[in-house]
Amino acid sequence: MVKVAVLGYGTVGSGVVEVIESNNEQVSRNAGEEMHVKYILDLRDFPEDPYGDRVVHDVNLILEDPEVSVVCEVMGGTGPAYQFTKQALEAGKSVCTSNKELVAKHGPELLAIARTHNCSYLFEASVGGGIPIIRPINSSLTAEKILSILGIVNGTTNYILTKMENEGAGFEEVLKQAQELGYAERNPEADVEGHDACRKLAILSSLMTGKNVDAGAIYTEGITGITNADFAYAKAAGMTIRLLAAGKLTEDGRVLAMVAPFLLDNTHPLAMVKDVFNAIFVTGNMLGDSMYYGRGAGKLPTASAVVSDVIECARNQGRTIPCFWDGESAKLAEVSETEQRYFVRARVSARAEVEAAFSGRVFEAPDRAEDFGFFTDAMIEKDFNEKYDALGDKVLGRIRLA
Amino acid sequence: MVKVAVLGYGTVGSGVVEVIESNNEQVSRNAGEEMHVKYILDLRDFPEDPYGDRVVHDVNLILEDPEVSVVCEVMGGTGPAYQFTKQALEAGKSVCTSNKELVAKHGPELLAIARTHNCSYLFEASVGGGIPIIRPINSSLTAEKILSILGIVNGTTNYILTKMENEGAGFEEVLKQAQELGYAERNPEADVEGHDACRKLAILSSLMTGKNVDAGAIYTEGITGITNADFAYAKAAGMTIRLLAAGKLTEDGRVLAMVAPFLLDNTHPLAMVKDVFNAIFVTGNMLGDSMYYGRGAGKLPTASAVVSDVIECARNQGRTIPCFWDGESAKLAEVSETEQRYFVRARVSARAEVEAAFSGRVFEAPDRAEDFGFFTDAMIEKDFNEKYDALGDKVLGRIRLA
Repeated sequence: MVKVAVLGYGTVGSGVVEVIESNNEQVSRNAGEEMHVKYILDLRDFPEDPYGDRVVHDVNLILEDPEVSVVCEVMGGTGPAYQFTKQALEAGKSVCTSNKELVAKHGPELLAIARTHNCSYLFEASVGGGIPIIRPINSSLTAEKILSILGIVNGTTNYILTKMENEGAGFEEVLKQAQELGYAERNPEADVEGHDACRKLAILSSLMTGKNVDAGAIYTEGITGITNADFAYAKAAGMTIRLLAAGKLTEDGRVLAMVAPFLLDNTHPLAMVKDVFNAIFVTGNMLGDSMYYGRGAGKLPTASAVVSDVIECARNQGRTIPCFWDGESAKLAEVSETEQRYFVRARVSARAEVEAAFSGRVFEAPDRAEDFGFFTDAMIEKDFNEKYDALGDKVLGRIRLA
Repeated sequence: MVKVAVLGYGTVGSGVVEVIESNNEQVSRNAGEEMHVKYILDLRDFPEDPYGDRVVHDVNLILEDPEVSVVCEVMGGTGPAYQFTKQALEAGKSVCTSNKELVAKHGPELLAIARTHNCSYLFEASVGGGIPIIRPINSSLTAEKILSILGIVNGTTNYILTKMENEGAGFEEVLKQAQELGYAERNPEADVEGHDACRKLAILSSLMTGKNVDAGAIYTEGITGITNADFAYAKAAGMTIRLLAAGKLTEDGRVLAMVAPFLLDNTHPLAMVKDVFNAIFVTGNMLGDSMYYGRGAGKLPTASAVVSDVIECARNQGRTIPCFWDGESAKLAEVSETEQRYFVRARVSARAEVEAAFSGRVFEAPDRAEDFGFFTDAMIEKDFNEKYDALGDKVLGRIRLA
């Protein structure tokens, strides 16, 4: 019997209990022994809940119970969640989490503690919700040198961009709709400014390199500047706009990590990723391109990923499941020093100046009287920015090309 | 040091050696110790080859060498490959293979032998080439009840269908091109008649159910009947045609397994899978839809998958990596008794009779003077067949809807 404790009885926590109970046949078969939720830690009581009798308020009950071998930390945040995770690992209990903030901030330290105590720290649900991506990187793409990871890892922004694309609506209007439907938070900053995607990219690019990529050091640009005019051009060019989390090994062995909206050709596999779906596109030196697609959020998909981690822990009791993520910092490339291609939207009156500033080609979309588009050739971002800034209010926006 | 033997120095075999040598840093790190190819078994000699000195002709050298802990069976076929795999497992050596024929035919038996001898039989490369799909099913989707698997698992037919779609060319013409480019075999039957996809589906649906799905019992229909007229209608309807390997749990707990061309809406994630790429779309009861996409064949992608299995074996020496696939036969549903929707193409002169035979809707494509299309409502296949057959040469073809 594998006895599990769930820390935090919110959306994901109640999902974890539901998955373990509803799919107990599959879960127990795959774990190799019966799985049972012994404790649920929460500040609140749940007298009406069918599992309300398992709710406890004191974490020490869990930490000191030798029967509990796996702990699911689904509280979120980096305060008590950090403390409890450390204590559980130090007590030799494996910890499975969906807490991307904590993983991005303390991943290498917690992994090291798990190794010392012959248990595991797993975080499949921290990126891409229910999509298997952490385990594929750690145990399927192991014969590869991973060259790049390109992900749509935030459902809220992907929903907003898809709506803008389909309905020709503006950002603010769609954001409001998304908030009403519960797809965006009342305070949407973490999503629309790219911070959520940034944390997930920190995790993915750390796993790609084996060294630590600090979320704070990742160039991050959100989608608040994307307009329906941009989509009009994208559509006319056979492209779409997606918020991408991009991690790429440079030729000199550094990592180019950035979160930003990109123009993407409609033939790219990521272009078909609509609404709240997520996908991660991974390129290896032997395998070439592969992609992992599915629901990037939601109670049950996320919970399913947490429970799959619990099953792995049950299968690997007394040993640590390998995960290569050092505390040593990865060397990051400066975005300003890398080459990119850009789409520039500019006032029709400034056409001569735009053509003089950049090499590339003019792109006109139907029904656009006031502005025109320009695709630049590849150029160093710093040089682009200088020229773009010098054009002042003659230019109306720019988006990088994926 | 993990010492590996490679059985068969053909395309995949030489790829396996190349991946282990070229990516030795990643491979050895991920295996936890240095990996080295000690033997290559082949009937031929390779005096010019850089690894020619490792070539041996007697399998007993490998079977009797206690240093060899993992064997890669990349010979193909079910003759000596079967014998050598059994002997290696009985000697406690794990076996990793790309041999879908052998896995489909003897999977449960070989897995049982591996369990008895505390080693593993792994076959990531047997389905979807380099795409991680076997390990995701066996160790990531473990909290799921898998409800259905829908795969594009044969690159040759997908290449042919994509070409027919893009160029409006006929099947025979495109097949010839594919043969000239090396994408299709001189004897293309195993691919175009669906037998290759059928074996892969046998493996996938066995893993889905945990019971044995015999390839011989799977309803299999190839793509030789697909015409450019079908693609004209598909295009007009916003759809495409793909050869799908479909495994689905029915409500009464049986498995509906079939390989056949299907009409697929362009908004379906599988519709963007072009050319020789493969993808497997998996639906679970908690996670919902997920998809795994990549190169389904090719020397290095396939070899990379084999080597990822070798790494898993190295990490799990002395124990068996779980894989639930019994010898007991899964209960299959009869395709003729299941409900499907159909697209029927018929002569314009027979319109009244087609409308009388089926309920559904007429679909006309531009520039089609001689024929018209009809989408039926859902109906039992047996009933459909009766009515369709009764129409004789008034109907020109039918394709199921996915």
